[in-house]
Amino acid sequence: MVSGGSASGVALAPSVSVDEANAEAFSRLDAADPWVVDVAPAGEVLPGYKENLVLTSGAPMAWEDYTGGQREALIGGALFEGLATSREEAIEGFASGRIEIGACHDYAAVGSLAGIYTASMPVFVVENRAHGNVGFCNFYEGKEPRRLNYGCYDEGVHERLLHVNTVLAPVVGEAIRRSGGIALKPLIARALRMGDEVHSRNAAASILFNREILPAVLGMVGEGVPGVQETMLHLAENDYFFLRLSMAAAKASADAMVVEGSTLVSAMAFSCRGFAIKLAGLGDQWFEGPPPVHEGKLFAGHTEDEITWMGGESPITETVGLGGFAQACALSLQDYQGGSPDVMIERNREMYSITHGENGTYRIPLFSFRGTPTGVDARMVLEKDIYPVMDVGLAGRDGGQIGAGVIRAPRECFENAMAAFEERYGAR
Amino acid sequence: MVSGGSASGVALAPSVSVDEANAEAFSRLDAADPWVVDVAPAGEVLPGYKENLVLTSGAPMAWEDYTGGQREALIGGALFEGLATSREEAIEGFASGRIEIGACHDYAAVGSLAGIYTASMPVFVVENRAHGNVGFCNFYEGKEPRRLNYGCYDEGVHERLLHVNTVLAPVVGEAIRRSGGIALKPLIARALRMGDEVHSRNAAASILFNREILPAVLGMVGEGVPGVQETMLHLAENDYFFLRLSMAAAKASADAMVVEGSTLVSAMAFSCRGFAIKLAGLGDQWFEGPPPVHEGKLFAGHTEDEITWMGGESPITETVGLGGFAQACALSLQDYQGGSPDVMIERNREMYSITHGENGTYRIPLFSFRGTPTGVDARMVLEKDIYPVMDVGLAGRDGGQIGAGVIRAPRECFENAMAAFEERYGAR
Repeated sequence: MVSGGSASGVALAPSVSVDEANAEAFSRLDAADPWVVDVAPAGEVLPGYKENLVLTSGAPMAWEDYTGGQREALIGGALFEGLATSREEAIEGFASGRIEIGACHDYAAVGSLAGIYTASMPVFVVENRAHGNVGFCNFYEGKEPRRLNYGCYDEGVHERLLHVNTVLAPVVGEAIRRSGGIALKPLIARALRMGDEVHSRNAAASILFNREILPAVLGMVGEGVPGVQETMLHLAENDYFFLRLSMAAAKASADAMVVEGSTLVSAMAFSCRGFAIKLAGLGDQWFEGPPPVHEGKLFAGHTEDEITWMGGESPITETVGLGGFAQACALSLQDYQGGSPDVMIERNREMYSITHGENGTYRIPLFSFRGTPTGVDARMVLEKDIYPVMDVGLAGRDGGQIGAGVIRAPRECFENAMAAFEERYGAR
Repeated sequence: MVSGGSASGVALAPSVSVDEANAEAFSRLDAADPWVVDVAPAGEVLPGYKENLVLTSGAPMAWEDYTGGQREALIGGALFEGLATSREEAIEGFASGRIEIGACHDYAAVGSLAGIYTASMPVFVVENRAHGNVGFCNFYEGKEPRRLNYGCYDEGVHERLLHVNTVLAPVVGEAIRRSGGIALKPLIARALRMGDEVHSRNAAASILFNREILPAVLGMVGEGVPGVQETMLHLAENDYFFLRLSMAAAKASADAMVVEGSTLVSAMAFSCRGFAIKLAGLGDQWFEGPPPVHEGKLFAGHTEDEITWMGGESPITETVGLGGFAQACALSLQDYQGGSPDVMIERNREMYSITHGENGTYRIPLFSFRGTPTGVDARMVLEKDIYPVMDVGLAGRDGGQIGAGVIRAPRECFENAMAAFEERYGAR
């Protein structure tokens, strides 16, 4: 285990140009080398974690600003962790500050949808071996549309979360440790050749990951380690399993981008209130805007007006050149999130006009193995009036997943970020 | 176990048009439902197999017509099976008829490259549950370029073949039987969404197959069945493993196409002498032509003039709408066999102009899930002057695989087939 936290920035002389700073930030991102090395409870490995802390997605807010599904998810998290024994007690706890709320990103973690973390929840520990920092993400709850991270908490959600804690995570953790850690970048690169973009489609990456741990798993079955068969069958049925590893790998990679004077985006996330971005040159400050613009496909029986925002930090994958920025790899997503191959390919191509470079590892077969567009430059976004695309799951106002689609980051985030950038560095 | 052999044809009245006959042949092909149900020695399950029989690829020929690598492969097969103890004895055996030669297709089997079968070699038993017939294919020897089916026979080849017979095949067979058989069509359809065309690229299909047998395998490990771990690790490392299942599934599907009066191609294969096709309306007769035209990419250290033809029946995959007919699914093949995405996409599209219909199960994400072009119509080939494309491995004159590429079936096969068709049915 290495210690968590963000990579420290490389201070550049004031004479260094934005282009040079961006080249450095891009180069750090491109060199990142994320390995999953362990699974451990959030309370034990997330830097500065406290027993009474619940993490959620997006720029941090006061308790009273959390509404709808994200508020429900926070309450569910408190109940799951035993920080309260009733809904009322949880609400009182958050209001009084007895139960604390934190933003995932501040703990080197990223949250899927509402992104709830509590102390006992197991997380993937992903070490960026090129830069020494660590990123975290907790486990996928399973295919059931009602999930804590989609604002639901009931007996079924409780049981599935407990099953992650007591069966799945211990087995997967043991298999990862026995494997000596697993390099995620080559695995993701391979999955891109197999129809994934590792945000909304993880079918290949999930089975590739299963194959990586197979030698360890077979050994564990031979020794009679409990829960192994059950865990492997669960993994085999859950094509979305790998998303959390993709997110942790992306977080560990993006956190290495902290570079003075850079206008490259180092994080994108949203809460129930709105979308927000960070810039590599402006450290941990969030620049907020309204909720994202969306275009999606709903599961049968659901309607547009049900769509609600309850948080989401999986756009960390787009931040590093995956997800929507690699959707030309994953054209079968047209089935799941709508759109046609032509639209998906065009969207993907468009991202080259707002990114600093082409990924050295993640490549698109359809584009003759051109590297994915990587490193969103806030300046180019404003200049071109083109906004980052992200492949996401859509949440319903009554909780649960009701569809999937593509969102665009709103202009205001980039305007606010560049205003702060000029304030800090002067107009360049 | 059901018995092997071709599906019997459906006799149509003479008044039935070629178009109607082709519609029926296409419909039978499209309805085929191949399941792998067992693994057993060729001598036990191939219909009419004899202990002294060696099967090889392509239209049947006399011993003296087999030259180069295909001749070497036959000799190697005789030695491996113990039908001869020396090269000279094997040659004498073939010449005298003491060792018999058969054509794979006549035994409901298909051969990869030289396609050598001997009595002890384990084969996948694939049952077409829609029509009751069975198709067979033997095992992939492994990644080593020197393989019996590429005209090589030495101590290493012998050992790897023996390992297939004694370790891999028994374990895989047991896992298949414990799984109650595995439906191959949905698995292949899924692999097409994951970057395979299941001829020259089988990376996804191979791990999807491994996942299908995983529950059985975990049970076997728990019981201490020997060789299971070793076998699973072998499968995990061999992306080409599934090709033989793809070929057996295609053979079991194409054999159901026998329909009076149909001009659809029901088999494509080649030997060291040349290419040959069968028509659904002309039973088991082969129509021969010169060797295929090729365009390929050679492994480092090899040159064009080394390329040699030593047989190949894997074009059974193209016969059913896979391989070259689905290469727009597998654009990462550009790395392996040359060509650009644009060329591959255009080649794939071109096949719609010589095929009867669009596959109801095998679909291409890039073409908005349009079904793959399926059922080559010999009439359209001649009329359009466009020839079936096939993704194949390339063999070297000294044996072994030296590259991969795309071949085109030669015009003469279709001319000969249509001449025989008109002789049989009259000009229509």
